[in-house]
Amino acid sequence: GAVPQASAEALEAVVVAPVAAVASKKAKRLVDRETRGEDTLVRVGDVLVGGDGFVVMAGPCSVESADQIRATARAVKDAGAHLLRGGVFKPRTSPYAFQGLGWDGLALLAEAGREVGLPIVTEVMAVEQVQRMALSADLLQVGARNMQNFDLLRALGKVDRPVLLKRGLSSTIDEWLGAAEYILAAGNQQVILCERGIRTFESATRNTLDLSAVPVLHERTHLPVIIDPSHGTGNRRYVAPMSRAARAVGSHGLLIEVHPEPDTALSDADQSIDHAQFAALMAGLSR
Amino acid sequence: GAVPQASAEALEAVVVAPVAAVASKKAKRLVDRETRGEDTLVRVGDVLVGGDGFVVMAGPCSVESADQIRATARAVKDAGAHLLRGGVFKPRTSPYAFQGLGWDGLALLAEAGREVGLPIVTEVMAVEQVQRMALSADLLQVGARNMQNFDLLRALGKVDRPVLLKRGLSSTIDEWLGAAEYILAAGNQQVILCERGIRTFESATRNTLDLSAVPVLHERTHLPVIIDPSHGTGNRRYVAPMSRAARAVGSHGLLIEVHPEPDTALSDADQSIDHAQFAALMAGLSR
Amino acid sequence: GAVPQASAEALEAVVVAPVAAVASKKAKRLVDRETRGEDTLVRVGDVLVGGDGFVVMAGPCSVESADQIRATARAVKDAGAHLLRGGVFKPRTSPYAFQGLGWDGLALLAEAGREVGLPIVTEVMAVEQVQRMALSADLLQVGARNMQNFDLLRALGKVDRPVLLKRGLSSTIDEWLGAAEYILAAGNQQVILCERGIRTFESATRNTLDLSAVPVLHERTHLPVIIDPSHGTGNRRYVAPMSRAARAVGSHGLLIEVHPEPDTALSDADQSIDHAQFAALMAGLSR
Amino acid sequence: GAVPQASAEALEAVVVAPVAAVASKKAKRLVDRETRGEDTLVRVGDVLVGGDGFVVMAGPCSVESADQIRATARAVKDAGAHLLRGGVFKPRTSPYAFQGLGWDGLALLAEAGREVGLPIVTEVMAVEQVQRMALSADLLQVGARNMQNFDLLRALGKVDRPVLLKRGLSSTIDEWLGAAEYILAAGNQQVILCERGIRTFESATRNTLDLSAVPVLHERTHLPVIIDPSHGTGNRRYVAPMSRAARAVGSHGLLIEVHPEPDTALSDADQSIDHAQFAALMAGLSR
Repeated sequence: GAVPQASAEALEAVVVAPVAAVASKKAKRLVDRETRGEDTLVRVGDVLVGGDGFVVMAGPCSVESADQIRATARAVKDAGAHLLRGGVFKPRTSPYAFQGLGWDGLALLAEAGREVGLPIVTEVMAVEQVQRMALSADLLQVGARNMQNFDLLRALGKVDRPVLLKRGLSSTIDEWLGAAEYILAAGNQQVILCERGIRTFESATRNTLDLSAVPVLHERTHLPVIIDPSHGTGNRRYVAPMSRAARAVGSHGLLIEVHPEPDTALSDADQSIDHAQFAALMAGLSR
Repeated sequence: GAVPQASAEALEAVVVAPVAAVASKKAKRLVDRETRGEDTLVRVGDVLVGGDGFVVMAGPCSVESADQIRATARAVKDAGAHLLRGGVFKPRTSPYAFQGLGWDGLALLAEAGREVGLPIVTEVMAVEQVQRMALSADLLQVGARNMQNFDLLRALGKVDRPVLLKRGLSSTIDEWLGAAEYILAAGNQQVILCERGIRTFESATRNTLDLSAVPVLHERTHLPVIIDPSHGTGNRRYVAPMSRAARAVGSHGLLIEVHPEPDTALSDADQSIDHAQFAALMAGLSR
Repeated sequence: GAVPQASAEALEAVVVAPVAAVASKKAKRLVDRETRGEDTLVRVGDVLVGGDGFVVMAGPCSVESADQIRATARAVKDAGAHLLRGGVFKPRTSPYAFQGLGWDGLALLAEAGREVGLPIVTEVMAVEQVQRMALSADLLQVGARNMQNFDLLRALGKVDRPVLLKRGLSSTIDEWLGAAEYILAAGNQQVILCERGIRTFESATRNTLDLSAVPVLHERTHLPVIIDPSHGTGNRRYVAPMSRAARAVGSHGLLIEVHPEPDTALSDADQSIDHAQFAALMAGLSR
Repeated sequence: GAVPQASAEALEAVVVAPVAAVASKKAKRLVDRETRGEDTLVRVGDVLVGGDGFVVMAGPCSVESADQIRATARAVKDAGAHLLRGGVFKPRTSPYAFQGLGWDGLALLAEAGREVGLPIVTEVMAVEQVQRMALSADLLQVGARNMQNFDLLRALGKVDRPVLLKRGLSSTIDEWLGAAEYILAAGNQQVILCERGIRTFESATRNTLDLSAVPVLHERTHLPVIIDPSHGTGNRRYVAPMSRAARAVGSHGLLIEVHPEPDTALSDADQSIDHAQFAALMAGLSR
C-alpha cells in the first residue's frame, strides 16, 4: 500500500528490544513515557504498529457470512489495508440484538484473512474466550465497555498475543493508561491504544472523537495509538475527513468499518463505508 | 429501625407473585413497566426492597479486618440499617492499588453480618466468582464499570440470588435498563437498580448524582431503585443532605459507605462517614 | 401558605445587617462564606429568601395575555406561592421563535402581581433594559445563557433591586460564584442563585438537575440558592418529585413553570404544570 | 505565505454575489446549506475566508503594550499569517482578573496591524461597543460566553463588518447555527464560525476540540468554519498537531494565540506559543 509502515530499522528494534523490567511501584508505571523513552512497536503478524508507521485495519463491524467477509477482505487488501477486522462476539445494549456468529464467525474471519494475506483483529469479550481466541486471532481487541473489566485485562496480560485496547466511553486518558497498565503489569507489553470517541452532549455525531488524545498520549506513553473514526463519528460521511485528520495529528493508524453493502449491515450500518468509499479514503491518505 | 420496610401485604405479594413470562420480543422488554404493572419487590434475606419501603445498606467501601467490619456492622445495625455492605474484590483504576481481601474478606463480612443479623451485599467482579459468592452473599452487586459486562450479567441471570445493578458512569437510563434486561432475560427477576452518579464536567463533586433518574425509572420500569450518595458526591459532607433528597424523590433506599475511622480507610476515604455521622443521618431520615 | 418563610428575627437581621465591606482582593471574594459567616437574606417585596425559609416562585414561562397571567397569578397565590414569575423577553435558540410580549408583557405581569399581592420576577436580557425593568419588577432574573454576560452583571450590580442568577448550562459552581461576584463587587449584595440543570449526555431529561450543588453552595457561599425543576427536568411529570427533593436537600426555594393549559403554551409546554398540579405540588411540600 | 487563500475567481464571486434574500420561515434558515448551495466567502480587509482557502489569524490573547503587539504583529506576518488577532476587552471568570486595555488596546492593535499590513480581529463584548469597534476592527469576534447573547447578535447583524462567531462551551452545532441565524436574519451575511473546544469530562486538555464539527458544518451550512486549537487544547504543546489536523479535516483556517514570551502573558499563558513556535507551525502546515 501507499501508506508506509515502520522502517526495517524499527523492525530490528522491536525484535531485539528487551522486555521492560517488571515494575510494581505506584509512582512509575510501565506504560509511562518516563519508564521507556523510545516508542513501543507492536508486531501483529508481520505488520508493525507504532513509530513512524501508519497502519490501517479495516473490515465489517460483524462477520455475517463467508461471502461477505471474503469480499470485504479482498477489497480492503486491494485498497492497501494492513489488517482485517471483523466482530464475532458483539457487545450489544440489548440482549435481543444480533450477538455475532461466535466461533463460527472467527473461523470465517481467519480463513478470509489467510486467503488475502492479512492478519486479523477481533474483539474478545470474556476471560474464558482468551486462550481459544488467541489461537487464531493475531490481535485481540478489548471493547470500550470492557476497558475496566480488570479480570479480562489480567488474562490478556498472560497471553502471547498483542492487544488493542479501546478507550472507555467516558474514560479519562489517565484511567485508560491505568487499564493498559493491568495488561503490561501482567507481562504483556504489546498493547495498542485505540481512541473511538467519548460521550458528550453533542448529538450531531454518535460520539465526540477526541483527536487531542493523540498528542497527549505521545507525551505520556510509549504505546502506539490508533483512531476509530467509524465509532467516533457514527456517520459514514464523516469517516474520510476524520481519517485524514487522524493521520495529520500523528496517530499510528486507523480502525475502519467496511461492508459490501452498508445499508444491509446487521450492526452499525450508519457508520460503515462500502468498498469504493474505502478505496477512495485510502487514496486520500497517501496524497 | 424507624425507617419502614414494605408492608406485610407486599411481602405476601412477592412470595406468591408468578415469575413474569419469558418474553423475547424486542419491542417489549421484561424490565419495562408495560410488561409488569405492579412494582417488583426484591427479597434480600428477610428484607424487602421496593414498593413503599425504604431500605438502607451501609458498611465500609472495603472490608479491611475482622475488627473493622464487626465494629461497623454493629454500628450500622444499631442505627437502623437493613443490610451490611462491604467490598472484598475491588475494581481499581490502578493495578497497584489495594485490590481487596478477596474470599477471606467475604468470610469476615458474612460472619459480621450473621453476628448482628443483617443480610450482606458485596460486589462480584467476574463470572468465575458468581457461584461461590452466591453461597454466602445475600445480594450480589455489579459495579458501574461492569454494567455492560454482558457475560457477567448473563451468569447472574442464572443464580438464585438477587442482584444490585449499578448504573455505568456514563450510561443512559435506557442502556441501564438494557443491561438489567440481560439478567431478567436469563431468568433472574430479582434486580435492584442503583444510581451512583454520572460523569459530567463539574468537579466540585466526584460525580453528579442524577436524582431525576428516580421518577424516570418509576415510569419506565417496575424494578426498585436505590441511591448511592457516597460515590454520587465523593464527599462525606454531602452524603446526609443527598440522602434526604434521595428519600424525598421517591427512591427505595440508600447504599452508604461507613467506616470506623474514615480518614484511615484503604479506599474511598473522602466519601465515607463515621459511625456517629451515620447514626445522625438515619435519625434525619425518619423525621 | 403552609410553607414557612424566614422568621421575624431573620427579617430584622437583614434590615439592619451592614453591607459587606467592598473587598477587591482576589483571594477572598464577597460571595465566599469566609467573607460573611451568616446567611444572606434577600428581600423581594416583603418576601425574604434565604436562611430557614422556603420560598416558591411560580407562573408561566411566557406572559401570553392578560387573561392567562391573571388566571395563573390567582391560582399560584391561592396555592401558597410567594412570588409570581413570567417571561416577557425570551431568549430563544431561533430568531423565528416567539420572543415574548416585551414591555407590554411586563405591564400585564406587574398588574397581575398587584391584583393578587405577589411580588414579580422576570428575566432581563440586556443592559439597556435594566433601569426600566427595575421600575416594575421586584426581582431581576439573569438567564442561564447570560450567566457570563459580564456587562449585564455589572449593570445589575448598580441597581437597587435583587437579582436571581441562574447557573449557566455548563458552568461549574466556581464559575457561577465568579459571575455572582461581578454583581456583588459592583455594589449589589442581594443575589439569589438558581440551579436549573446542567448539560450532560443523558437525554431522558432535558438537563440533569444537580441537587448536590445545594450542599456545595451552602459550604462555599452565604447567598441563598433555589431550584428550577421545570427547566431542570424538562418534563412536567418529574417536577413534583424533584421539588420535594429540592426541599429535602436544603435549598431555599423553587422556581416553577405553571400555565392554565400547558399543552397550548407558546414556550416550554412540555415542562409546565397546570393549576391543579401546582396546588398538589404545594400540598406535597408542606407535608 | 505558503498557505493559499481562495482563488481570484472566488474573490470575483463574493464581490458580485447577491445578498441572500431575507427569509423568515422557520423551516428554512439563511444559514442552511439548502438555502444557499455555494460556499459563502467572507471578506476581511483584502483576505477571503472560506471555499478552498486556508487563513491563519494569529496574535496575543490580550494586547498588553505597544511593544508586545508590534513585535508579535511583525512575527506572525513574517511567518505567513493573514490576520492579526488581539483581545482588548476580556471576558474573565473573575471580576478581579485583568480585563484588557479597552479602547487604548484597540488603538494599539489597529496601529500594529497597519504597520505590517494585516487586517485585525478582536472580541466585542457588548452592544454599546459594536459601532465604535466596527470603525477600526476588520473582523468582530463574538466569544463563546456570548454565543447566545441575542441582543449582541442582532446588533452585529446591522453593521457592515464581518463577524467571527465562536461556539459556546456546551452548545450543540444546531444551537450554534441558530445563533448565526440571528446575525444573518438581521442583515449581515458575512459570518465565520469558529470551533474552540467543548466542555467534557476530560481534564487532560482544557476543552475537547471537536474537529468532527467541520464535516458536520460543511453539510449543514455554507458558512466558513475555522479552528481555535489554543483554547481547544489549552496547552501550547498540542497546538501544532491539532492545527495540522484542523487543516486535514477541511476547515477554512485557524485562530492561534501567539505571544513574545508566553510565560509572562497576562492571560492564557499556558496555551500561547512563541514566535519561533508559530513559524514552525506555519512551516508544518504548508508541507
